[in-house]
This record gives sequence, structure tokens and C-alpha cells, in this order.
Amino acid sequence: MPKGRIFSGMRPTGRLHLGNYLGALENWVQLQDEYECYYGIVDLHALTTDYEDTSRIRENVRQLAIDFLSAGLDPEKSVILVQSHVKEHAELHLLLSMITPLGWLERVPTYKEQLRQLEGRDLTNYGFLGYPVLQAADISLYKADTVPVGEDQLPHLELCREIVRRFNHLYGEVLLEPQAKLNKVQLLPGVDGRKMSKSYGNEIPLGAEPEEVRARILSMITDPQRQRRNDPGRPEVCVAYTYHGIFNEPETQEISTECRRAGIGCVDCKKRLAERVIEATQLVREKRRQLEAHPELVDEILFEGARKARKVAQETLEEVREAMKIS
Amino acid sequence: MPKGRIFSGMRPTGRLHLGNYLGALENWVQLQDEYECYYGIVDLHALTTDYEDTSRIRENVRQLAIDFLSAGLDPEKSVILVQSHVKEHAELHLLLSMITPLGWLERVPTYKEQLRQLEGRDLTNYGFLGYPVLQAADISLYKADTVPVGEDQLPHLELCREIVRRFNHLYGEVLLEPQAKLNKVQLLPGVDGRKMSKSYGNEIPLGAEPEEVRARILSMITDPQRQRRNDPGRPEVCVAYTYHGIFNEPETQEISTECRRAGIGCVDCKKRLAERVIEATQLVREKRRQLEAHPELVDEILFEGARKARKVAQETLEEVREAMKIS
Repeated sequence: MPKGRIFSGMRPTGRLHLGNYLGALENWVQLQDEYECYYGIVDLHALTTDYEDTSRIRENVRQLAIDFLSAGLDPEKSVILVQSHVKEHAELHLLLSMITPLGWLERVPTYKEQLRQLEGRDLTNYGFLGYPVLQAADISLYKADTVPVGEDQLPHLELCREIVRRFNHLYGEVLLEPQAKLNKVQLLPGVDGRKMSKSYGNEIPLGAEPEEVRARILSMITDPQRQRRNDPGRPEVCVAYTYHGIFNEPETQEISTECRRAGIGCVDCKKRLAERVIEATQLVREKRRQLEAHPELVDEILFEGARKARKVAQETLEEVREAMKIS
Repeated sequence: MPKGRIFSGMRPTGRLHLGNYLGALENWVQLQDEYECYYGIVDLHALTTDYEDTSRIRENVRQLAIDFLSAGLDPEKSVILVQSHVKEHAELHLLLSMITPLGWLERVPTYKEQLRQLEGRDLTNYGFLGYPVLQAADISLYKADTVPVGEDQLPHLELCREIVRRFNHLYGEVLLEPQAKLNKVQLLPGVDGRKMSKSYGNEIPLGAEPEEVRARILSMITDPQRQRRNDPGRPEVCVAYTYHGIFNEPETQEISTECRRAGIGCVDCKKRLAERVIEATQLVREKRRQLEAHPELVDEILFEGARKARKVAQETLEEVREAMKIS
């Protein structure tokens, strides 16, 4: 049986953090053996919200590529592509725009929500409304049958499926209706206990240097009621303890016991944690250092990725044009 | 002083008629010596309204190309291009979509008007709303400084200018704000006196064979009060007389006099007219016959047109990408 095919993408908005890794990228790495994978750095999507200041897009594309590669995406196994390098994304987007009812786009729950969340910024642009059409083009261009998504992305994927069905109904069975594959999400809180997010400044960057990891983890919030070293702690409300459960599983039981009887102080507990996190991210860090020292390697990989992606994309577009009976 | 540059386009919806020729194409032919001209067969625009049945687009593209060429557009002087052959139209459309406020599109007078006119057909698609963005991309791609338009197209051109201004404001002076050049319109009624239009079935096709021209002109409406040969006629209400004014100017005075004193009958009057129209369209007809016999010539011209167009389009897009700081 031939392998299934996956497309998934991330917007280049700066370096990834550990939360992104556990929330999605780790899944992507694992899917590489089971599927034929196309992973996109979707820089055109970044324009839907960041059109006013595009000064960092290029550097963000590079950083995201380094994150992808250092986390274990393997250009020998997967196609790693920058969306704007493959013009067929724009072309299929235009063609699909012709058959996508405005009402479908207006009722996407994330549309109005984002408008609300990003209030004060002028996002009521044509391209912002068309975000899901561009996503449908991204996925359909590679005839992906499977898309790894978080729960919040399900409405977009459903819309993609509707657009594909409409296309196939009008022009014949050319595009594939992709299935969602829900990410096994391991939720990692930020150092302040809230959702990890750059906008909160509570993140630990993926591939951070040991000193930075230590500093971030030492700033972590623990049990707020444990004010002195001799107070017993409550691991269940402690962010550091959550991290131990993920990065230091074998010692979790011991940490819990010692915390509850004040056998270990928060600083020592966090120092132990920091070393585990540093160990766990050692390979990522080394790979990142290597790629930072050799930017030409990253360029080559993206160049080659675009070449492979373009080949498939062009084939799809030929079929699409043939089905729509244009040129 | 370098020549100004023109872009204008027509949707491929079948063969042109004499009204299209006098209303626009004749102007285009004349502009070829004064300007560097890019004339587009905008097949992607045809999808905004005709997405449900695309079966005739290809043949319509060919017919429009033959009309262009037989009317006197000269591929040695002008670039004749099919929009879908130049992918940069789609790419610039996507980039401009990011900065075009929805409100600008919703308030275009032709938008709501077309929705009303074409009621019963489902046109509330994303691409239909984005029509003016695609037009702005068409014009901007070739850095046209001048666009020959009819009055009804002025709001679209104004929107194009607004999009260009917004682009240049955000990213620097890259695109050109095009000026409108109002077509000198010679209004030619259809054979029934209404506006000439295929949808009324009252048109005389451009390059029609003599028999067809005669038949169409003989069916022409004259003064309805002139019921018998001996009744005097009123040229001012006669469609044939309007045509004499355009195609048989030297004899107009005589025709008017003879009509008023019943010196000439309507059938004879129309026969004389038919011969003048046949003469006036002789070159167009010959050229059309020649091109119909050699479809490979048309293909070659369109291939070469796309090549020339692509060269300019790619240069523009490089500047656009550089200004937007993407890839």
C-alpha cells in the first residue's frame, strides 16, 4: 500500500518554543516514517496579519527552517518548502477563490474571533478573509490525504474539504478531500503557568543555550504558598513539577515526595529540572548551532524542497487547469 | 521621451461584434503607435461569473485572439497575452489581496449592480468580490501608466489606484498609479435599436461573412411609422440611418433627403448600407479567414505574447517581493 501524504504548515513568526515542539513539531517528526510529508513554512499566510510590517519575515523563515531541521524534520524523508517559493500556491488560491462562497468564509469561527482578538489592528482585508482558501490551496496542491491539526484548526480543515467537494462536483474528481489527524498534544505551560506564548514572554525557545534554559527555568513559578525553604510544597500547583513529569519522568515520584515534606527546595528542584531539559534538547541545540554556522546548508535544503514541491504542485495544477478547461 | 504603457483586457465570452469594435477595439488599434501596449485576454476574470460552465473558455480565448488580430492589433507592435498563461497575475493578486480592505471592494458600484443583474445565478463567491483586486494586479504587473476605459469602468480604475497607493505607502514606490484614458466611444446600436449585445441577439459579429452582414442589416428596424414604400420616413428614428452615419458618411445627406421624400425604400436603403458595412469590414474578414485556416499562427502569437509579458511581469514581481521583503 502506498504511503499516505501529509501537508502541514507553520507561519514564520520567529523562533519556536518548547510548547510548539511538544504541541505539533514532535508529531511531525514522528509522522515522517509513516507518511510522505510536505511541511510548509507558510510565509504568505504571515502577510494576512503582518502585512504592515514585513521586515522580519525573511529572517523568521530562516529561523523556522532551522527549528524544523534541528527538531528532526529530515529533508531526506520530507519535503520542507517555503510557500512563496512555489508560485502554484497563489495560482490554485485564485482558482479556488472563484468557487468559494463568501458565506463559508464569513462563518469560520476563527475569523470573527481573530478580528476581535487583534482589535485595534486593521485586519479587515480581502486576504485575511481568504485565509482558509489559501490553506485549502496549500493542502490540495500536494494532494495531501491527511492533515495533522489541533482542535482549533478543525473548522478550517472542514472548509477545505467543502471547497474540494465543490471543486470536484463542478469539474470532476481531481482534488483529494483530506482527513484530519488530531495531534496528540502535550500541553506545556509557560514559565508563569499560562499557555506558553511569545506574546506572554513566558517561553523557552527551542534549542536555547543551556544558560538561557537555566535562567528561564529558575524564573519559573512554583507553589505560591511555599514561601520559605522549610514550607512543604504542593506539586500539583507547581509549574516546575509539570515539567518534571515531561522531562524527568523517572524522578517524578521522588520529587513529589521530597517537595511535600520540604526535603528539596524550589531552587534545587528547578536546577535539577533545568539539567534534564538541557539534556533533552541537546541534539536540537547542536543541530541548531551547526545550521546557524552554515546558513548555506539551510538555503540548499529550502531550494531543494521548493524544487520537489514544485514538481508535485505543477502536476496538480495541470490537472486542475485541464479539469477547469482553461489554457 | 519614452512611450507610455497601456494595459487593457477583455474577457473571452465569444466573438466580438461591431459594437465592441467601435466601442473599444478600434481605440486599442490606434493606441498601438502612441503607446507600448499590453492587451490581455483575461480568461481568469471569466471564471468570476462563468465558473459553473467553463466548457467554452478555451474556444472563446481563441476567438477573441482572432478578433484582436483581425481587427488590427499587431503582435509586432503590441503584446497580446492570455492572462492564465502568465502566472504572475495570480501571484500579484494574492499579494495585493493582503492589503485591500474588504470595504473598498464591497462599495464598488458595479459589484452590487452585477449581483442584481445576474440574479438567480450564484455569484456571491470570494473570487467575484475580488474581481477589482485581480484587475489591479493585471494593470500593475505591467506597470501600465495608462488604461483606456469606458465610463463604467472608472470606479474599478479608481480602486486600482487606491490599492497601488496603499502598496506604495506600505512598501515603497514600486507600483505605478495608472491614469484613465476615456475611450472615444462611438455608440453603435444593435439591429433592433437597443444596445448591441449578444444577450439581446441583436449583434453583427465582427468579421461576419457578407451573407450574414446582409441578413442582419436587412432585419434592422427602421422608422416604425413608415409602413408602406410611399410613406415618407424619419431618419432620426431609424437604426439604419445611424449606421449610414458611421459606415456611409458621404451619402448620409442624400439618404436623409431621399428617405424623407420616400425617394428610397427601406429595403434598398439597407442593401446600400450592407454593402458599405461589408466593404468597411473587408480587411477584418480576410484576416479572420486566414487565421481560422491557420490556428497554429494564433497559437504562436499567443505563445510569444506570453513570453514577452512574463518577462515584464517577473521583473515587477521581483521588485514587489523585494519591497515586501518576502523570499
